[in-house]
Amino acid sequence: MIRAALADGTADRRCTFEVFARRLPLRRRYGVVAGIGRLVERLSEFRFGEAEIAALGDSIDAATLEWLRGYRFRGDIDAYAEGELYFPNSPILRVTGGFAECVILETLILSVLNHDCAVASAGARMVSVGDGRALIEMGSRRAHEEAAVAAARAAYLTGFTSTSNLEAERRWGVPSAGTSAHAFTLLHTRPSGADEKAAFRAQVDALGVGTTLLVDTYDITQGVANAIEVAGPRLGAVRIDSGDLGVLARQVRRQLDELGAGDTRIVVSGDLDEYAIAGLRAEPVDAYGIGTRLVTGSGAPTASMVYKLVEVDGIPVAKRSAHKETLPGAKDAYRTYRSTGTALEEVLTPVGADVSALAEEPRVNEVRPLLRPLFVGGEPVSALPSLEDSRRLQADARITLPWEGLSLAEGDPALAVRVIGR
Amino acid sequence: MIRAALADGTADRRCTFEVFARRLPLRRRYGVVAGIGRLVERLSEFRFGEAEIAALGDSIDAATLEWLRGYRFRGDIDAYAEGELYFPNSPILRVTGGFAECVILETLILSVLNHDCAVASAGARMVSVGDGRALIEMGSRRAHEEAAVAAARAAYLTGFTSTSNLEAERRWGVPSAGTSAHAFTLLHTRPSGADEKAAFRAQVDALGVGTTLLVDTYDITQGVANAIEVAGPRLGAVRIDSGDLGVLARQVRRQLDELGAGDTRIVVSGDLDEYAIAGLRAEPVDAYGIGTRLVTGSGAPTASMVYKLVEVDGIPVAKRSAHKETLPGAKDAYRTYRSTGTALEEVLTPVGADVSALAEEPRVNEVRPLLRPLFVGGEPVSALPSLEDSRRLQADARITLPWEGLSLAEGDPALAVRVIGR
Repeated sequence: MIRAALADGTADRRCTFEVFARRLPLRRRYGVVAGIGRLVERLSEFRFGEAEIAALGDSIDAATLEWLRGYRFRGDIDAYAEGELYFPNSPILRVTGGFAECVILETLILSVLNHDCAVASAGARMVSVGDGRALIEMGSRRAHEEAAVAAARAAYLTGFTSTSNLEAERRWGVPSAGTSAHAFTLLHTRPSGADEKAAFRAQVDALGVGTTLLVDTYDITQGVANAIEVAGPRLGAVRIDSGDLGVLARQVRRQLDELGAGDTRIVVSGDLDEYAIAGLRAEPVDAYGIGTRLVTGSGAPTASMVYKLVEVDGIPVAKRSAHKETLPGAKDAYRTYRSTGTALEEVLTPVGADVSALAEEPRVNEVRPLLRPLFVGGEPVSALPSLEDSRRLQADARITLPWEGLSLAEGDPALAVRVIGR
Repeated sequence: MIRAALADGTADRRCTFEVFARRLPLRRRYGVVAGIGRLVERLSEFRFGEAEIAALGDSIDAATLEWLRGYRFRGDIDAYAEGELYFPNSPILRVTGGFAECVILETLILSVLNHDCAVASAGARMVSVGDGRALIEMGSRRAHEEAAVAAARAAYLTGFTSTSNLEAERRWGVPSAGTSAHAFTLLHTRPSGADEKAAFRAQVDALGVGTTLLVDTYDITQGVANAIEVAGPRLGAVRIDSGDLGVLARQVRRQLDELGAGDTRIVVSGDLDEYAIAGLRAEPVDAYGIGTRLVTGSGAPTASMVYKLVEVDGIPVAKRSAHKETLPGAKDAYRTYRSTGTALEEVLTPVGADVSALAEEPRVNEVRPLLRPLFVGGEPVSALPSLEDSRRLQADARITLPWEGLSLAEGDPALAVRVIGR
């Protein structure tokens, strides 16, 4: 496309592309914008080096190679805040510049946003139903090795407490946590047989009694007894990773209390998703370790965001294929709120349209613009929010949903998106 | 775990870990081993640099930091050939060495294998039902930016013809292909209106008449007429990306033939999976562009492989938790074949067991060992198969399945896995 556009003089036509999802997966009520901070990092360094140029050498003409060699994005990007909610057709990112400089970013932008929004949109439902209890992200092993690091960040954004991925801590300061694996207990097997207490003793000696001991390698009741015998009643936590977690949690809670370990917490893990978390709400569970279902988006491993050209030299454009209509024209987006802080609806308007009338509509107390500058003239804006800022924004945003919007059940989007035409 | 094991003297106990899936997802009939070549690259460079050491500094004791600083894997790894089939409990990778040097590889090994096996296991079903027609991998935008590159490689392994991911071509020589996007057609909009022919002309001028023109931006019938008017009857292909693809393919085929473009091929794309491909087998479709459903494993985005300690200093070990039993002891794996080349079963034995009796069993014509050395003493073996070798092996392996093993329908694994004890 770039080669042909350079040749016929259309490469620099001023274009606007928008990123949006046509629908929410699995009839969920809301999505969570994630990956914006990661995208700033990746876009800022997006260049074609000599290795890439050399690899393309045979298949591309000299003019295109030269253009790639000098490539850097010089346009503007506006985006929803990371942590904000989105709904069908919410234009979460708007890219403006020459056609070629914008179209070449499609794959990178969509890859980052589709992955991170998928994980965050699942994670938010887990945090929401977790009702304040600690959630530990443990899914790295079930995702591509780099996707795993990004997933840990997206999970933390939504309110997960910590991650087992140390690289996410190194890159972005996500707090790390972990417990030992069954392998560590099995390691302490001797010719005379299993020796769970030796494993527990080694762990407590190294990490103190505040650690979390995994008690289900052999017999859970014996495992709990061994744990308290070794660590004493001030043991931090025990983890149960298999079996009927609700039944086991009650049984282990009773046993811990009887052993005087009333403050020892119970961590459960093992293929948990938002529904399993909901099912354990009435049980004496203090923390959840969540892996596979989080990093795979709990049934929706991609957010299905698309990157569509909506305007060329001021002319709104859209393809007219069946079932894949795109709203033409570059758009602004606003969200209206009641006086209680509850969100009312999302409103899309042509860019620059006067929206003062929105504030006068019934029940509207506040009108907030959703698109904020992210890159201006190819440079990232200063004072971008930190991951902690975005995490607070996400927690606050969930509170603005109408009450049925937090339901795990399938249904319509929690907010309607209204389009105001030209 | 490493800190505690270093402190109590168990860090160097000789251990064997095995990688396997307890079951195949979605009751599929077989899985495809993928990622082995990528794993060799990643394991060969797996070290802790100063940045990583510094990031861990506060939370880990000096002895463990020193161990990490000097870390390199010095053990042995045996693995199924990349492209080989696997079934529940197939030990596709076996890692032997000191506990600490092996356990630290768990996340990296599982991340690579879980991702690549998931994509390949879906891709093989698509290739199998595609019945020799070209399949183009187009899913990069729907996956994490690095996972996308790995997914293109895994797809090619299973028989996909090409990928839209140029980085996969640069890294691993996967042939690249692509067609233009709707944005390129929309780019040629003028104040007077859409100008599809200008877009087609630009593309043909740049890439020649062998290119693939996307004909469904506006009206498909007009799009096909415009395509042939601009490119002539020797146009390489047209692509249809929306609508009822079967109906449209028939209609477009008729139109192309009437226009004298009998050799112009038809490429279809748009949320295709193995079932959609099967549904289009009777239609005049020449190639499929496949994206989302491939890179997300067509409903199974992770292969659910686990990495389990099975032996410590020669003692077979296994946890006894409900529903998560592991077969204890380091294992060898064999597959038996009939004289026709059809696979009979997979047999797991203790490492080094005499399996000469297998060849004497009824119907058995050949017994092939499945585990081959990958690393010896920490060094990758020489003469590892190329990606092309693995692609041929995968095509050959699929042919060995009993006929019902290629069914898309849910069912039992195509091969039974028999365990011979000590």
